[in-house]
Amino acid sequence: MQEKGISQAVVSRLPRYLRYLGELKENGVERISSQELSTLMNVTASQIRQDLNNFGGFGQQGYGYNVDFLYTEISKILGLDREYNFIIIGAGNLGRALGNYLNFERRGFIFKGIFDKDPALEGLKVRGVGVSHIDKLEGFLKTNEIDIAVLTIPKTGAVGLVDMLVNNGIKAIWNFAHVDLDVPEGVQVENVHLSDSLMKLSYNISRYEQEKKENGQ
Amino acid sequence: MQEKGISQAVVSRLPRYLRYLGELKENGVERISSQELSTLMNVTASQIRQDLNNFGGFGQQGYGYNVDFLYTEISKILGLDREYNFIIIGAGNLGRALGNYLNFERRGFIFKGIFDKDPALEGLKVRGVGVSHIDKLEGFLKTNEIDIAVLTIPKTGAVGLVDMLVNNGIKAIWNFAHVDLDVPEGVQVENVHLSDSLMKLSYNISRYEQEKKENGQ
Repeated sequence: MQEKGISQAVVSRLPRYLRYLGELKENGVERISSQELSTLMNVTASQIRQDLNNFGGFGQQGYGYNVDFLYTEISKILGLDREYNFIIIGAGNLGRALGNYLNFERRGFIFKGIFDKDPALEGLKVRGVGVSHIDKLEGFLKTNEIDIAVLTIPKTGAVGLVDMLVNNGIKAIWNFAHVDLDVPEGVQVENVHLSDSLMKLSYNISRYEQEKKENGQ
Repeated sequence: MQEKGISQAVVSRLPRYLRYLGELKENGVERISSQELSTLMNVTASQIRQDLNNFGGFGQQGYGYNVDFLYTEISKILGLDREYNFIIIGAGNLGRALGNYLNFERRGFIFKGIFDKDPALEGLKVRGVGVSHIDKLEGFLKTNEIDIAVLTIPKTGAVGLVDMLVNNGIKAIWNFAHVDLDVPEGVQVENVHLSDSLMKLSYNISRYEQEKKENGQ
């Protein structure tokens, strides 16, 4: 249990390591030094060593990291050595976009159903899965083992659904609704608040322009 | 220039303050103590005071925060007191979802164009804006002032576009492509790597289940 007490900041960086290691693997690279990885990823070698030391440190002095081994270990740490079933609630453009992402499936996230309150969308196929009416969601959860619910609906709808989802075995919510959800302990939530991300961009644009002005450029 | 040297961690929290203050405003609340705001937002009152002190501290002892004033000030800090023109590159489901978000417009992000390399999508309307062929993008940028390019295309396409975008006046890239982009200094990038976010969820699910097992539950 080496990964006890890893900070969420380190966890947040792991998918990026995985992405770079996956590309190295695809390119047939078998080992890499922390210095080379550092240049490639544009982070300090010491940061890399520190991050990877959280897991016992996979590097060997004078050898570097074994790409394949490190890739596999980070995958395991991220819980990617098993499958997760997910459903999408909200079959608008965003919900359909997420249903169509083949990359999720490659990582072990299996798309099992998509629901919407709009009867007009019923039967529409998203990557072979038909949209069902939201009234059928509870029954579906009772007869299928679903790990993750993806919420791509407006905030009012999202808040009202949480209890039912949790009572029917949902372990995690990937929340795109623009609201903070109240969940019982043990239920994981990951928020993707798109407009928050856009505001960071406007902050940085206006900050940069202000600095330029102050520097008389 | 009170906002000099604010950490990106604080900046990341500002949109959430704005969201809660906006809801308070809508509900007719005129002032709020840091204690009440703390309960509502589920963060410590001291964190709130610390964060808001970065901007000179808008609270008054015994009065609390003036909701409307604080909302306006945070909006300004986030650069939301002006408009930004944006275009979307990639008219798949995700690109269309982002084009359809009315909330962005309300915040001052004006949707000006959407481009795709697939000729079959040409003319399709996304919130009144027709999809144009990507060949027309460079000409469009030369004759229109666009601040932000939203990239909802695969990573290979994204990397190849950056130079052209920057040379034609794009100030910021909202990047949904699963790749790190190399941009010149002064060009802002905000990444939304959806599968990274999904992996945080799988990490937390598997971590929690492992802990349960270790505790013999």
